[in-house]
Amino acid sequence: MDRAEHAGKLFIISGPSGAGKGTICKRLVEETKVEISVSMTTRNPRPGEIDGVSYYFTSKEEFCREIEADGFLEHAEVYGNYYGTPKAKVIEKLSQGIDVVLEIDIQGALHVKTAYPDGIFIFILPPSMAELRKRITGRGSETEEAINLRLSQTLKEVSYIDKYDYCVVNGELEEAVARVKAIVVAEHSRVSQNIYKLIEQYKEEV
Amino acid sequence: MDRAEHAGKLFIISGPSGAGKGTICKRLVEETKVEISVSMTTRNPRPGEIDGVSYYFTSKEEFCREIEADGFLEHAEVYGNYYGTPKAKVIEKLSQGIDVVLEIDIQGALHVKTAYPDGIFIFILPPSMAELRKRITGRGSETEEAINLRLSQTLKEVSYIDKYDYCVVNGELEEAVARVKAIVVAEHSRVSQNIYKLIEQYKEEV
Repeated sequence: MDRAEHAGKLFIISGPSGAGKGTICKRLVEETKVEISVSMTTRNPRPGEIDGVSYYFTSKEEFCREIEADGFLEHAEVYGNYYGTPKAKVIEKLSQGIDVVLEIDIQGALHVKTAYPDGIFIFILPPSMAELRKRITGRGSETEEAINLRLSQTLKEVSYIDKYDYCVVNGELEEAVARVKAIVVAEHSRVSQNIYKLIEQYKEEV
Repeated sequence: MDRAEHAGKLFIISGPSGAGKGTICKRLVEETKVEISVSMTTRNPRPGEIDGVSYYFTSKEEFCREIEADGFLEHAEVYGNYYGTPKAKVIEKLSQGIDVVLEIDIQGALHVKTAYPDGIFIFILPPSMAELRKRITGRGSETEEAINLRLSQTLKEVSYIDKYDYCVVNGELEEAVARVKAIVVAEHSRVSQNIYKLIEQYKEEV
């Protein structure tokens, strides 16, 4: 899959848990024309979840057929349920000139990079480990031991940052959102195949 | 010269005459912290021009010594006068963490690319050749023959666009300015040496 074929671009917003990638992604979708990629899952819908909006809900059999057909940009099993990013849905939007954003953990992002290397990979970082600890602790759902484990895990994960194009430190949310929006605009100004079409037009005019 | 050593970034705004690179550059300097690179010249100051602001005014002898000392990012002779971008002045600002913008024609930009490949090269394009003709004609200073020659020249120049990182079509000025500003912000979010310093800090915290 070559990005040059698609007018839309795929942005992958990734980073450690607690960095705020979900919030940034939500703001991007709310405030720009970028559309979110809806995941496919085999888990049961929760009350209020809508098929095709929250997730594409499907059976394990169907999901496995999709895996065999190379139908995912990435997929993973979590607590016995499958989750994946349906390739065809993403490509369909990109072909229509729609930008797509995908919020995903670091392991997932690395899979996407293999399947779609022309995606634009953005790593969201916490301003400090102290701040990350505060955010995770604030959720109140984890023991100190679990939090320490999570922080060591985060340290390992950030070593993958050199696989990414951009990194945005999420210290002040408004600034982080503005940065991600600027990346979307800037990426649409990259010298690419599209510009050669304009140059062809010039030639016809002179 | 490695960009990684410098906290500031060098933006080269270039493009054919009439594309509006001067106006965009001026707006960028007025509305952001990016500073303009002041050229050195051997021509005489005009009324109102200030040494070190409009240009660095110098003698031919001094200019030639600078050329021999590899003191320019680029230089050119125009109607018997020399013009050049003093390397040391640019590097000094970059080292202080200041972004520098350089407005320059395409030939000059290609020289800068050789001297400082880590610069960020932005090509400003007119929306169409018809519009470019209108803009040049509007200035009223050239014959139709000269204008036609200029347009053929422009067509040749745009073929160098693949040496650039970004291109911005200047159809609507406000949008073009916003795009260039977004490029500046996005380039400061690129994964670079700076981010590794932050990761080292994380390690000390855990």
